[in-house]
Amino acid sequence: MVNIGVIGYGYWGPNIVRNFYGLTDCKIVAVCDKSPEALQHVLASYAGIECTRDARDIFLSKTIDAVAIVTPVSTHYELACKCLDNGKHVFVEKPFTATVAQAEELIERASRKKLTLMVDHTFLFTGAVQKMKELIEQKMLGTLHYYDSVRVNLGLFQHDINVLWDLAPHDLSIMDYLIQTPPEAVVATGASHVNGLEDVAYITIYFPNNTIAHIHVNWLSPVKVRTTLIGGEHKMLVWNDLAADEQVKVYDKGVSITTKQDVYELLVSYRSGDMWAPKLEQTEALRVEAKYFIDCILHNERPVNDGEAGRRIVQLLAAADRSLKKRGRIVQL
Amino acid sequence: MVNIGVIGYGYWGPNIVRNFYGLTDCKIVAVCDKSPEALQHVLASYAGIECTRDARDIFLSKTIDAVAIVTPVSTHYELACKCLDNGKHVFVEKPFTATVAQAEELIERASRKKLTLMVDHTFLFTGAVQKMKELIEQKMLGTLHYYDSVRVNLGLFQHDINVLWDLAPHDLSIMDYLIQTPPEAVVATGASHVNGLEDVAYITIYFPNNTIAHIHVNWLSPVKVRTTLIGGEHKMLVWNDLAADEQVKVYDKGVSITTKQDVYELLVSYRSGDMWAPKLEQTEALRVEAKYFIDCILHNERPVNDGEAGRRIVQLLAAADRSLKKRGRIVQL
Amino acid sequence: MVNIGVIGYGYWGPNIVRNFYGLTDCKIVAVCDKSPEALQHVLASYAGIECTRDARDIFLSKTIDAVAIVTPVSTHYELACKCLDNGKHVFVEKPFTATVAQAEELIERASRKKLTLMVDHTFLFTGAVQKMKELIEQKMLGTLHYYDSVRVNLGLFQHDINVLWDLAPHDLSIMDYLIQTPPEAVVATGASHVNGLEDVAYITIYFPNNTIAHIHVNWLSPVKVRTTLIGGEHKMLVWNDLAADEQVKVYDKGVSITTKQDVYELLVSYRSGDMWAPKLEQTEALRVEAKYFIDCILHNERPVNDGEAGRRIVQLLAAADRSLKKRGRIVQL
Amino acid sequence: MVNIGVIGYGYWGPNIVRNFYGLTDCKIVAVCDKSPEALQHVLASYAGIECTRDARDIFLSKTIDAVAIVTPVSTHYELACKCLDNGKHVFVEKPFTATVAQAEELIERASRKKLTLMVDHTFLFTGAVQKMKELIEQKMLGTLHYYDSVRVNLGLFQHDINVLWDLAPHDLSIMDYLIQTPPEAVVATGASHVNGLEDVAYITIYFPNNTIAHIHVNWLSPVKVRTTLIGGEHKMLVWNDLAADEQVKVYDKGVSITTKQDVYELLVSYRSGDMWAPKLEQTEALRVEAKYFIDCILHNERPVNDGEAGRRIVQLLAAADRSLKKRGRIVQL
Repeated sequence: MVNIGVIGYGYWGPNIVRNFYGLTDCKIVAVCDKSPEALQHVLASYAGIECTRDARDIFLSKTIDAVAIVTPVSTHYELACKCLDNGKHVFVEKPFTATVAQAEELIERASRKKLTLMVDHTFLFTGAVQKMKELIEQKMLGTLHYYDSVRVNLGLFQHDINVLWDLAPHDLSIMDYLIQTPPEAVVATGASHVNGLEDVAYITIYFPNNTIAHIHVNWLSPVKVRTTLIGGEHKMLVWNDLAADEQVKVYDKGVSITTKQDVYELLVSYRSGDMWAPKLEQTEALRVEAKYFIDCILHNERPVNDGEAGRRIVQLLAAADRSLKKRGRIVQL
Repeated sequence: MVNIGVIGYGYWGPNIVRNFYGLTDCKIVAVCDKSPEALQHVLASYAGIECTRDARDIFLSKTIDAVAIVTPVSTHYELACKCLDNGKHVFVEKPFTATVAQAEELIERASRKKLTLMVDHTFLFTGAVQKMKELIEQKMLGTLHYYDSVRVNLGLFQHDINVLWDLAPHDLSIMDYLIQTPPEAVVATGASHVNGLEDVAYITIYFPNNTIAHIHVNWLSPVKVRTTLIGGEHKMLVWNDLAADEQVKVYDKGVSITTKQDVYELLVSYRSGDMWAPKLEQTEALRVEAKYFIDCILHNERPVNDGEAGRRIVQLLAAADRSLKKRGRIVQL
Repeated sequence: MVNIGVIGYGYWGPNIVRNFYGLTDCKIVAVCDKSPEALQHVLASYAGIECTRDARDIFLSKTIDAVAIVTPVSTHYELACKCLDNGKHVFVEKPFTATVAQAEELIERASRKKLTLMVDHTFLFTGAVQKMKELIEQKMLGTLHYYDSVRVNLGLFQHDINVLWDLAPHDLSIMDYLIQTPPEAVVATGASHVNGLEDVAYITIYFPNNTIAHIHVNWLSPVKVRTTLIGGEHKMLVWNDLAADEQVKVYDKGVSITTKQDVYELLVSYRSGDMWAPKLEQTEALRVEAKYFIDCILHNERPVNDGEAGRRIVQLLAAADRSLKKRGRIVQL
Repeated sequence: MVNIGVIGYGYWGPNIVRNFYGLTDCKIVAVCDKSPEALQHVLASYAGIECTRDARDIFLSKTIDAVAIVTPVSTHYELACKCLDNGKHVFVEKPFTATVAQAEELIERASRKKLTLMVDHTFLFTGAVQKMKELIEQKMLGTLHYYDSVRVNLGLFQHDINVLWDLAPHDLSIMDYLIQTPPEAVVATGASHVNGLEDVAYITIYFPNNTIAHIHVNWLSPVKVRTTLIGGEHKMLVWNDLAADEQVKVYDKGVSITTKQDVYELLVSYRSGDMWAPKLEQTEALRVEAKYFIDCILHNERPVNDGEAGRRIVQLLAAADRSLKKRGRIVQL
């Protein structure tokens, strides 16, 4: 049994509490938030959870084994340090930290204390991403040519971070999980129109062997789009996260090239076959992830979305933000 | 009555011939192509058109007033020079030329001889683009925040030009027509996977006042997408060129910002109202453009898609291609 | 303040409890269900609600003013009788009763005791239906030509009622609300394939003046569809209840007829203009309806979805079921 | 080589001429139409085709082997008689004839003279219908539960036949081809709103073993829909004839029923697996059908869409029309 404390009960905190609450191997013993209204909501919704406005009641608690940190990114480092230093396992909201140095420091502390450190890259635990991972590992797509993701909608504007830090962690963590190759460089462009923070951004990530990724994030779109195209040598797929059904469609399509005998001309030929939409696991991703966090603690296993994974995403975000500020200057990784 | 000669009867030439053939104020007198099969097809389909394999029969002809050049871009400059030098008005396929210098030279020659020079930016003449132009000129959208266009499908790979030169002229010419402001700089990224030419490319164009444009072109997509988002201060729109109906949807949506009294905090508020899909003119765009070319000749008017418009697009293409080759290095315009 | 008791906490009961619980002018004092697990769930989710397995604790309670009956249709009549006889206002799940006679009896009892009797025709309180009602009352569509509704998906099979009694109450109650004219006759067809109850059914309802309605309900569809077409003399609309946005689209389309002078030939002409998707109210329909029930009690107003509305739907269901059993024999109303 | 004459060059005739013209084993020698403008169009478009306004020039011609009759249904019988009597093979537009008696008479005459008689049920030759036929014959769907088809759009109103005779032949001929079982009875409902002819109609067809078909045809719909659902015991499919890609989607979904041991309760269980969209043949259906007509003549084979198939569709249309006129009275077949 893992006793859990939660720090932060704003936009995402209620989902964290609801999902851990529903598990059998753990128990939420306390929730901390600065807002009395938030805590009132906890008390009205759940029995047996202590509420506090002081985070020390969480990280200094004797009964708490693990802490979920669901606060703004600027506070992650300090809170996570306190938790780790007090021997708590840590589950921290994305993006992991505000800087790569902070990420490295946290990884080091968790490692030294042999504590589980997990970053909430929720999308990795969706049925869609799990299925795409499986298909890629089975080599069904062949060599990956590109990864193209669009995540746009109207708002919600953040007041402390731009659209890149707000939305791109989703796409970058999925990309990182599926491509499994260290990227070489990043180029990002964008603009701000409303509150001084960039609300439109485009990120290109260069990988070895001509694999290229591109992410479009936008807070100013009249329509909501969450679509990813992945082009492979053998097959290609489209993931529409907003589709009610058939979110992942795998196309038996491809392009190949031949050289005519005795001629220097390259011939391109196209192949087009069936489309197939595999059945996807429907369990709520955060439920799967919460259970995975508990399992990693109990069996002392290293999660795929560990601090190192969080650090890689922060590195990409920081590089992209730097490139964006310099109007697309390339940042080598 | 304008007598027309057509040079090139490959992929697009038949559409040019069919549309000019259907007009009343002009007459197609001759078609030139190197392929006897192509010419055979002309003879079988139309009465009264002379066929030749020698372009000189077109540009030296006494009876021909205007020439449509529908050949690969590498030949545009030389053919257009010959036509202009022999006093022919010129309608030339997009992209206008392979270099900005060639474009400037052709503009100069046409100007000197007072000949009409038009670049085939067909999309400007669609009902959708005409309607969007009208809405933007009526200030319905307000200040433009961004222009985002996606044009992807499987193939058709070109052997002489990359995906940027092949597909982006459409998006760039529409963007140029709608935004009507000189861009400041270009950043482009991309990669090649099949025949050594880039098959995936992303172009960012910076305009003054934080207006930003982005174009995604791709020959390796399993699905065909032709969607443009335009975000304005007051309204936003989506143009789906592949929709059977309601191609342009105008959203009464927006974001505004207020400053709380006595507080430094910026408040973002969202507005969401009706959606409206205006009825669009259904006439085939190329038919409208062909008629416009004839009208410009007959009334000695300067077309909106003149050599200068063609030059602007070539400048953007050349800049984007240069940026792409340098992995996103910014190119100032 | 209205004190409420709820009988039945199965599939729909939790939604009823949640929505009444969230209102300010009423208080849920007790919930009854035969299943201890269901009651356990109530206790875990809400503070201050008494639980009982005996419905008498509800309808004989001194503190309860109104009862929500959320049980299978076969029990509605008896439970509602008890509630009305004990002076409780009644909110009863659709379909209202199993027979027209039962419906009439309940109406009579409620009337005699001056109690509010409301049938849960939830869909009437959606933003979409409210907007369509408004457009029809404004005569925007003109004379209604037809109402066509499709409500199909895979399951959920009921064990006591066929697909007609299960799904068609939604469509019939919306149709009844929008058309506001007594129907003349019903023809229904269908078939059963799985458990002896019809799982596919088609209902035609004839109205005066050639207005026709048709409803397709199906438990055996691989895809979920919830689409209604309404054709009017001046405009037509499509309501897609599953669309994330733009659920109601109004088309400026129509057909008109003229007689050529001195000729007997009728000429049909078509009109096609803009499409418009009005912004819809987003509040949860059941919340709006629950509040409306409380308001009707407090202000002694007769609801639109009163017992009489419930009776009309039961009459249509019974007629359709009779027609269905006789392979489409017409049933006059 | 089969010499062909075509009678009728109105809406559909040009497609017939274009497709037969493109084949190698036949030659169109003459086209007949009452309108000089129509014939002018033939002359402008094709070389070597004689034009006439007198149908006798077709059916009395010595050189013509086969005649395509592409005229209004009221003329089919008389024209086909003349053609058959003069030894011509006949390809006749759908619906085959205006009455079942006429159909039987034509079948008899063709049989007596050993002539090929084909009814233009074009849709049977689409890649989609061919694929569905193949899947059904392979028993992939299992026993068919239902066939549900919707074919609606705005117009084109016919002046001589109602929407049932105009649009339903498509659906009925496809249904007849796929189900391959004689239907038992028909129930149809509908209404007219514009020119006295029914513009909205719903047809139910009862087959043995609880297989049921339903067809919705409508000339007054603001949106165009062409969707067919087929529910089988093992799998279900959706055919969307208007989709740009993936027109046929096969769902690994189903419902099965078990009886609890020692209990009378029936348990329904649901199965939901992958979706699969098979690649479809893209050749124009009318081209495939035209070639098939020529092949049947040359090899003296009986087409699947022979006079008998045409008669079955006319029988269904006549029965449905009779039922419609009597407000849904069942018509036994």
